[in-house]
Order: sequence, then C-alpha cells, then structure tokens
Amino acid sequence: MKLLRVGPVGHERPVVMDDDGKLREIGEPEIDGAFFVSGGVARVREALERGDLPVVEEEGLRVGAPVARPGKIVCIGLNYSDHAAESGAAVPAEPVVFMKASNTMVGPYDEVLVPRGSVKSDWEVELAVVIGREARYLRSREEALDVIAGYAISNDVSEREFQLERGGQWDKGKSCETFNPLGPWLVTADEVSDPQRLAMRLWVNGELRQDGDTKNMIFDVAEVVRYLSQFMVLEPGDVINTGTPAGVAMGMPGQPYLRAGDVMELEIEGLGRQRQTVGQA
Amino acid sequence: MKLLRVGPVGHERPVVMDDDGKLREIGEPEIDGAFFVSGGVARVREALERGDLPVVEEEGLRVGAPVARPGKIVCIGLNYSDHAAESGAAVPAEPVVFMKASNTMVGPYDEVLVPRGSVKSDWEVELAVVIGREARYLRSREEALDVIAGYAISNDVSEREFQLERGGQWDKGKSCETFNPLGPWLVTADEVSDPQRLAMRLWVNGELRQDGDTKNMIFDVAEVVRYLSQFMVLEPGDVINTGTPAGVAMGMPGQPYLRAGDVMELEIEGLGRQRQTVGQA
Repeated sequence: MKLLRVGPVGHERPVVMDDDGKLREIGEPEIDGAFFVSGGVARVREALERGDLPVVEEEGLRVGAPVARPGKIVCIGLNYSDHAAESGAAVPAEPVVFMKASNTMVGPYDEVLVPRGSVKSDWEVELAVVIGREARYLRSREEALDVIAGYAISNDVSEREFQLERGGQWDKGKSCETFNPLGPWLVTADEVSDPQRLAMRLWVNGELRQDGDTKNMIFDVAEVVRYLSQFMVLEPGDVINTGTPAGVAMGMPGQPYLRAGDVMELEIEGLGRQRQTVGQA
Repeated sequence: MKLLRVGPVGHERPVVMDDDGKLREIGEPEIDGAFFVSGGVARVREALERGDLPVVEEEGLRVGAPVARPGKIVCIGLNYSDHAAESGAAVPAEPVVFMKASNTMVGPYDEVLVPRGSVKSDWEVELAVVIGREARYLRSREEALDVIAGYAISNDVSEREFQLERGGQWDKGKSCETFNPLGPWLVTADEVSDPQRLAMRLWVNGELRQDGDTKNMIFDVAEVVRYLSQFMVLEPGDVINTGTPAGVAMGMPGQPYLRAGDVMELEIEGLGRQRQTVGQA
C-alpha cells in the first residue's frame, strides 16, 4: 500500500493511493506512531478492499512528507563503499550514526533552501526506513525487520562545509531548514519484497549524478535497525536514512554544489520519484 | 517563576511553584512550544498574582521533566576549557554541535539506566536552555537572549565507548534510554539575571565530582543560541544543553564510570537539585 499526506504545510491529511493511482481519504487523523501502533495499516487495507474510501480531488494538491514529523531522524553515514571512497573515508567497521533535526522534513516536491552563508550544499538520495513499533535491544535480523512499517525516498541534503570544516560533529551540516524531503509515498513493508534490491538514482538539472542500488549497502536495513536499537529506543514513526551511494557533489570533479534554481530529481525502484527546486534562504 | 510537570510518566500535568514553595495547578494543558508561543508564561504569572490557582497535594507525586518532550535536544560539546583538557581535546574555535534523541528526556529524580553492554557510562551536569520562540538566522546576542523561555538543570549522560570508540559520531553515545534527566524546574528567563554566573556541581555517591561555574563557558548562552540559529531552525520547546565543566569519569584517575546502585546528585545555583539512582537496562 502507498500512504501519502496531502494538503498545505502543517495541515496535511492522510490518504492512500489505490491500484488505479487514485488518492482516497483514509479516515484516520494522521500517519504517525499512533497510527502504526494501533494497526492503522491493516485498517486502511481492509477499508480499501471494501471499496468504501472516498476519492480525493487531486488538482493543485500539495504532497507533504508521507509521515507526520517524527520523534527523530537517525542517519547512517558512509554506508556504501563507493561513497566512503569518494568522501576520502575508510569503509566503517560498524555503522556510523548521526542525527538530523526532525523539523528538516518537507514534502517530496517542496523547495530546498541553500542556507545563508552556504557554498557547499549537496544532495544524497537514500532509502528511508519508517519504524512501526517501539524497539530496544533487538536480538535478531528477523526482530529488526518486524518493527519496520515501510519505506520511502529521502533526500539527506547536507552542507559539507558546515558538516566537515566547522569543528566537530556532522549534525551541524545536516539540520538546516528543508534539508530532508521525504516521499512521495510510504510503501508499506509487505509490498517491498527485498529492500536490498532497489535501484536508486538522482539527477541534478537533468544530469544523472547518483546511480546506485541498495544491494551495495555495507550494513543492510535489518542490521542497521538491529544495531541502532542497541543504542537508543526506536519509536513508531521514527525515520532512518540508511546512507547514500557515490555521486554527491563533494566527490565530483569541480564539486558542483547546489545553487538557487537547480532542480534535483530522485527515484528509488517502487518508491516513486521526488523533484525539488533549490531556493536561497 | 518556577514551572514544573508532575504526575506519572506520560501523564504529567503542569504546575507552578509559588513563593511559599507550594505547587499550584496552572490550568494549562502542557508546558511546551504552544504554551510559550501563546504567552503562557504571562498568563500563569497573572493567575499566580491574582492568587486563584488551586494548591496541589504533593505527597507521593513524581516530578517529570519541566517541559514536554522537545522537537530536538541540541548539545554543545567541549564548551568549558577544563573539560576539553580532561577529554584530551583542543579548545574549539567555534561551538561543537551534536544532538541527543529527545526520547532520552526523563524527570530529575527518575532512574538512569546503564545501557546493556556499557562499561563507560558517565555524567555531565549542564545548564539547559529552553527556547520560547521560533528562531532562524538571529543577528545579535540580544535577539538570541530574547528567544529564551528559561533555564533548567540537565544531566547529559554519556556512554564514552559508544561515543568515542565505536566509529564516527558522538550521537551514538548520547541517545540511550533515560540519558537526559531535566529539571526539577524550568526557571523563567526573567528570573535568571545572569546565566553566566551560576555555580554548578555534581556528586556521585556523595563525593563532589564536578564543581564549575557557567562563567567559564567558552561560548556563552547568547552566542550558543545565536550560532545554532545559523544552522537550524530553533523551535519553541527545544532544549539546548550548553556543555559541562571538568570532573567527568572519563577524565578522572581510574575512570570510575557509573554502575547500578550509584547515586548522582546535581545542582545549579537557583535552578534546584536533581538526584538519580543508576539502574541496569
């Protein structure tokens, strides 16, 4: 199932996309932790099968992030060996973990802002995992896969100077306003038969920049979720960005960082497509 | 004014402490971003002056964190030169910024859990700043001080092996369950005449371990808030941990890290006192 949230910023309402590509009201207040924990996915599926969900008029409708603002966005760094290489970093022995302020989350077609004073704003197409159940100290890969509600495309926008040249920790270059477009859909976990076989691509101004596959993750989705649960309590609605393959501006000849007017397009197999125009904060 | 939240975990209700030390209902749903933005502090002050707030029976009442779970907890690292020295780190040229999952926040007398597999859990007494207004790209120290709702004691509990020896970024050792006791009170900003003249102390099992003063911050409160707003949007209800002085276990002879049964007590001038017993996750 493909779940979405549509409407103006801060007033999104949840809908489901049916097999004909039509959006239908789901009669739930939100797509958030409470929705997942209370069996919301099963409720929507049953209602969809009964065929009694009203169709939503789509014209002019903004698409927001497919889940409400999460309690946290956790990110895995250097999780593709080709990206570690282009970053001049060693392949990590265990997952590199950092966080991103959750108020960075925006819709898949919303504007992304280059921060004031930024000259090194960069893109990162990533597979996002959305957590569906509280998780602490998971003991196996099976337990880890069991707490996943679904998957979406994430653009882990990053300011490299803030991240790497301004002293200390990466979070400083990861939490700028609009730095996490998510969506367009949350695809429920039951419909992603293998999260490690998803082609992923990103274009800037029509030129292909990233061309990867989730099969090349160093630590796969099950291991990332199991691992994180040893260090923090994952909560329903939390978002995990699982890392980006090679092809970011930082690793390219001439380092063509983002500028106002640029257009990013992102695609992951089965998870749809994003498109953001870049503006200036 | 001293604002608190009392009651069972997840069901805290907001109260104010009057001049006689009595707790009184404030008739507000929460102490959170919406409370600050809507002028909640002024409403409570007026009601308190009218003298019509009902007294709360305190016996057996748990004290929670004084603000609802924030959108983010942002932390400043190595912000006291004596702590930088004991950590073997250089004095930073600009603030070191990292984040802490906001579901680490617990009450000032709640149990703190040593994570499974941890052998290096450590304490950090810190001045916490609570944000009262949305803030982006603040231009001056005055603007920065103007968005502060108040101050509280924070224990930025840290697992040093997870933070420093497990690959990459610090967040991994900062976000474990129960790792951020906050409170007992939020003291509103108008009652803290100088946030840079507050003595701060921490004891473990009755032995004084940290004995500092906020006057020794490298980057003071106004600069920390102004600086952060250049990199992220600060929101009402957000919490900033402004760094810890020397005296953590990591920097002591024999590195006496926390073990189940230990008792931490923390005090900051004018902001009350915390006490946590350590348990095992």
